[in-house]
Amino acid sequence: MIKQLEITLTAQRRGYHLITPEIESQLHGTIKNGIANLLLQHTSAALTLNENADPDVRTDFESFMDKLVPDGDKIFVHTLEGSDDMPAHLKSSVLGASLTIPVENGKLKLGIWQGIYLCEFRNHASSRKIFVTLIGE
Amino acid sequence: MIKQLEITLTAQRRGYHLITPEIESQLHGTIKNGIANLLLQHTSAALTLNENADPDVRTDFESFMDKLVPDGDKIFVHTLEGSDDMPAHLKSSVLGASLTIPVENGKLKLGIWQGIYLCEFRNHASSRKIFVTLIGE
Amino acid sequence: MIKQLEITLTAQRRGYHLITPEIESQLHGTIKNGIANLLLQHTSAALTLNENADPDVRTDFESFMDKLVPDGDKIFVHTLEGSDDMPAHLKSSVLGASLTIPVENGKLKLGIWQGIYLCEFRNHASSRKIFVTLIGE
Repeated sequence: MIKQLEITLTAQRRGYHLITPEIESQLHGTIKNGIANLLLQHTSAALTLNENADPDVRTDFESFMDKLVPDGDKIFVHTLEGSDDMPAHLKSSVLGASLTIPVENGKLKLGIWQGIYLCEFRNHASSRKIFVTLIGE
Repeated sequence: MIKQLEITLTAQRRGYHLITPEIESQLHGTIKNGIANLLLQHTSAALTLNENADPDVRTDFESFMDKLVPDGDKIFVHTLEGSDDMPAHLKSSVLGASLTIPVENGKLKLGIWQGIYLCEFRNHASSRKIFVTLIGE
Repeated sequence: MIKQLEITLTAQRRGYHLITPEIESQLHGTIKNGIANLLLQHTSAALTLNENADPDVRTDFESFMDKLVPDGDKIFVHTLEGSDDMPAHLKSSVLGASLTIPVENGKLKLGIWQGIYLCEFRNHASSRKIFVTLIGE
């Protein structure tokens, strides 16, 4: 069985945000066992799995990634859309825009400490869309 | 329905290349809705999704990634295949060799600004193969 | 056909370890053609595909990633679980905790030089679990 749907997330401030509940709520009444493929339909944000308990982890993600790809770095040519734009593109590919997560007994089969992060890299972002494909039985 | 095929891309110069049309052309007459899993069969190149409009973005990808993992870095032990080889392996894992992309109504369901990049990290690369698995109905 | 199973890997020292045989041995008698989705159920380790021949490549992965995200970096706030913990979380997202690999004729369809790495980032790790979903026919 294949089921596809689009989720629109409310706009978030720049940073790392736990969105596991928003994703999980879409599973009800779809597949019991299989996979959920999530593709974020954007190139200046990302999806990743990481620690779901201590908000300090999300703070440290931002500190580290902003140091790794600094806003306004002079090496960038693509600068018309702002000093945060090209860094956002790079972070999107380093962390990835897509996740494929197992579903077992109607629930996302994540590790006990794993949550889904929406990584928002723009200073002034709009709402973000995720296209979900569920494959299973 | 499962369908599998191998795509051979023409050899590309070192850099970041949009290959969405080559991938999309393989979908005709296969599945209508589901997913396309692409696995690049190499360890010194990568596949990633990013901005499909301004070529400057691809230039900036190369500047950034070459600064992140410099050719000939003295920390590397694996140097026999050239100063660009170990950096190519690392970049391949940082950006990833695989993508899973939704298919809707017979087309790749990418965001409007998203394209598939072949990231070629070697100075003198041969042609690259992508193994495609389509799962859907 | 959907088949799901959990693999428990023996605890490994900090470093990069080839685990292709452990994964491949789980395929016998399941699907012939399709995909294998592997989700590592942890946030301080990763799975990646890379060179399977020269152990120096794995050594260089460790040197590079430890320089990229240094233990005990003063920018980190999340430090209670040790100086290697927050770096482990970041490395996990940079390299990724999940892989989706094609299966053809009952075997993982990897490139000839590709192997599956378990990337262990903790100094004193326990055993790690991978949840495997096979989809195919």
